[in-house]
Amino acid sequence: MTEVEVKKTQDSLQDRLAQVVDLLHRHRLVENLAHRQDASNQEVIDDLVRRQNLTELQRKLDELHPADIAYILEALPLDERLTVWQLVKAERDGDILLEVSDAVRETLIADMEDHELLAAAREMDVDELADLAPELPRDVVLELMESLDAQQRERMRSVLSYEEDQVGALMDFEMVTIREDVSLEVVLRYLRRLKELPGHTDKLFVVDYDGRLTGVLPLKRLLVNDPERQVGEVMADDPVTFSPDEDAYDAAQAFERYDLVSAPVVDKGGRLIGRLTIDEMVDLIREESESEVLNMAGLREEEDIFASVWKSVRNRWAWLAVNLVTAFVASRVIGLFDGAIEKLVALAALMPIVAGIGGNSGNQTITMIVRAMALDQLGSGNAAWLLRKELGVGLANGLLWGGVIGAVAWWLYDSWSLGLVMTAAMTLNLLLAALMGVLIPITLARMGRDPAMGASVMITAVTDSGGFFIFLGLATLFLM
Amino acid sequence: MTEVEVKKTQDSLQDRLAQVVDLLHRHRLVENLAHRQDASNQEVIDDLVRRQNLTELQRKLDELHPADIAYILEALPLDERLTVWQLVKAERDGDILLEVSDAVRETLIADMEDHELLAAAREMDVDELADLAPELPRDVVLELMESLDAQQRERMRSVLSYEEDQVGALMDFEMVTIREDVSLEVVLRYLRRLKELPGHTDKLFVVDYDGRLTGVLPLKRLLVNDPERQVGEVMADDPVTFSPDEDAYDAAQAFERYDLVSAPVVDKGGRLIGRLTIDEMVDLIREESESEVLNMAGLREEEDIFASVWKSVRNRWAWLAVNLVTAFVASRVIGLFDGAIEKLVALAALMPIVAGIGGNSGNQTITMIVRAMALDQLGSGNAAWLLRKELGVGLANGLLWGGVIGAVAWWLYDSWSLGLVMTAAMTLNLLLAALMGVLIPITLARMGRDPAMGASVMITAVTDSGGFFIFLGLATLFLM
Repeated sequence: MTEVEVKKTQDSLQDRLAQVVDLLHRHRLVENLAHRQDASNQEVIDDLVRRQNLTELQRKLDELHPADIAYILEALPLDERLTVWQLVKAERDGDILLEVSDAVRETLIADMEDHELLAAAREMDVDELADLAPELPRDVVLELMESLDAQQRERMRSVLSYEEDQVGALMDFEMVTIREDVSLEVVLRYLRRLKELPGHTDKLFVVDYDGRLTGVLPLKRLLVNDPERQVGEVMADDPVTFSPDEDAYDAAQAFERYDLVSAPVVDKGGRLIGRLTIDEMVDLIREESESEVLNMAGLREEEDIFASVWKSVRNRWAWLAVNLVTAFVASRVIGLFDGAIEKLVALAALMPIVAGIGGNSGNQTITMIVRAMALDQLGSGNAAWLLRKELGVGLANGLLWGGVIGAVAWWLYDSWSLGLVMTAAMTLNLLLAALMGVLIPITLARMGRDPAMGASVMITAVTDSGGFFIFLGLATLFLM
Repeated sequence: MTEVEVKKTQDSLQDRLAQVVDLLHRHRLVENLAHRQDASNQEVIDDLVRRQNLTELQRKLDELHPADIAYILEALPLDERLTVWQLVKAERDGDILLEVSDAVRETLIADMEDHELLAAAREMDVDELADLAPELPRDVVLELMESLDAQQRERMRSVLSYEEDQVGALMDFEMVTIREDVSLEVVLRYLRRLKELPGHTDKLFVVDYDGRLTGVLPLKRLLVNDPERQVGEVMADDPVTFSPDEDAYDAAQAFERYDLVSAPVVDKGGRLIGRLTIDEMVDLIREESESEVLNMAGLREEEDIFASVWKSVRNRWAWLAVNLVTAFVASRVIGLFDGAIEKLVALAALMPIVAGIGGNSGNQTITMIVRAMALDQLGSGNAAWLLRKELGVGLANGLLWGGVIGAVAWWLYDSWSLGLVMTAAMTLNLLLAALMGVLIPITLARMGRDPAMGASVMITAVTDSGGFFIFLGLATLFLM
């Protein structure tokens, strides 16, 4: 994609969204009026006004950066989103499709004709095309593949052969390569002949005649060194490189850690096959954090906030069903003790406190642990240490808050033994919460699963059933 | 800070951590032995072995990039962290202090003498110094300020005058500025005289004689254009700029949206006063996502996973206390209905199901809304739409899962009216969860608070008390 000059738009983006929504609503209002009125004069006037609004809207959209239009599309409910989408100039479709989230892209593609999709896709680079390909209709993809030359087709196949979370799926092919046995002067002349450098070019890749990477020449070094010097003398000969089957999230962390802007991707033989750039890595870091938040709440990551009710129901379904089962188990645990509750109805009122505080505390622990695992801070060496610490925190909080609530229960129900049972149950349930808050994510990770997946639902299940069992069990033993 | 060449270390970082931990444990083992043994011969030998381990550890650390050492320090419990910290060469202290998180930095600084801190700080740029200043002892800061020249002191004061979340606090001063009335050839010669360009220099800043920014010259354009051309012809004259009092997170989103690597910061008069770089923005994006996850669980963001038990207890204290109050309220709600529970003990077993599913569903909604707000996708124009949608999802899930659990209750307790009450209560509680899941974060944001703050605790409080009240209330009305 070509570089687009952007105005300083970031602080007024919310305003622009408001303007678009306003124009859309005026358009809608006129349309609604038109439906209600019969007088044909009125219709003509309305039609004019409506078109005027749309023209103004189109003018506004033409001024915006593709990323800003993407933002506006994300923030609109489906029907308004499609109205805006139809007003966007066809030649900008490709840029915008690449900027929106997967869920929104799906709705936009569904609204496009095959020939529109083809036109948009023809403007794209191979790596961008590969990003989009899985979501395009099959015949569009086939027609596109035919229009590519052999190298491009080979590259597209290579990108598509990697998993979404591998470096190979995120690399692009816009590397500028040079030889090490030429002078910087020659490199400078070569670059001038190129007319344009790819986005995020902060270094040139130095390769030998077999295409093997021998080093990188940062533009900074090219610019400050004497033009008479050879590339080989000036280049960095031990750069950070990535292999295409490496985990993309690890690569993103390396970009963050070593403050990289671009980096070469090499195959097993050391041959340069592509490059990674910081913009893709930033997107990845954001997506990773997002999916962590969503996963903990038991949401799949693809939900667009304006998805239909039906789609949202299906998205949230699975974990709600799991929760239903766990809640039912908790209910049966209570059922075991209905004799005790019948004798002492105060137990029914107090038991949710034990379960609730356990759930809250367990959620705090599991959030900390998931966080530490995402940042790779948790190894086998320190897991035991962390478990002891969390148990310590649980014990302290249990004695403290359990003591408080035990005293309140004693005062309310005038029974010191009930208060003691309450304190003991709170403490034991907080210890259980700490134990499971550490063990659940570690076990999920050992099983190769995402440690955040439904973490919140699972820990709550344990602290609910566990809390009821501990409290009602202790009550049966000591109070009946 | 000077540029550091890094090897390809990212895939072996976990290994390196394991090696460090291993050496630390061998060191510890020998130390423990030394304490237990009395034979002086043995002591000498142990001492030798211990020193050997430490020497090997030190050698390993010297090979690592400061960011990697920071990672290892983050992943170690306090005492082992300080052992490693003491082995790090003094001249690298500054780089590493800048890489670690605030919580870990605090522990490292507490372990350093004033003269060590001064030595480390003297290696830093002004903006880095300003980052660190709030955590340094007061007399160290005063001594540092004295060692700065007038311009540096002015800049440091300026950075310190902004809030942590403003652009001004994150800018650096490493801009390379040029005039627009010179040729590219002159610029190239000027850069060669500089010997080195600051990190993340992807563009030069074009200023007039009053220091006002008139444009930017991307290195890409400098390299591909004819050296005879003037800067003024080639530069981009309408670049994205930021003002120092702008919200830093908005700036980070603009970096992401427009794929920026660096950008100028200008004051109200249009004068260039600093620059922002992508590395600071990436850190910000990550921190923002992290604090969102932590805030939802009711954790303050500063907790280092290896913080002491006592520190962790205080960190989690506040929301646990809030939870205790809300759980107590829920308990009193149940207390209102103890007559009903005494008559029909099944109510005690079924009520946590209604509350639990409501809490889970409410957490899903609130997570979606907080997410949308963090991405600026929620405006006054679409809040009503979203509320209707979430109510729709709640109704659908309520009828569906409420129906299932109602049927189970009917079958278990052989009472169709109990099943109907169950279904109705589930549906109403899911509607309440949807309503509050949308309203809580919106209200918090309107009050100027973080919408994620304790979101999970609050929504659970509502769905617990609400769920108990709805279920037991309906049961009293229709079953008693």
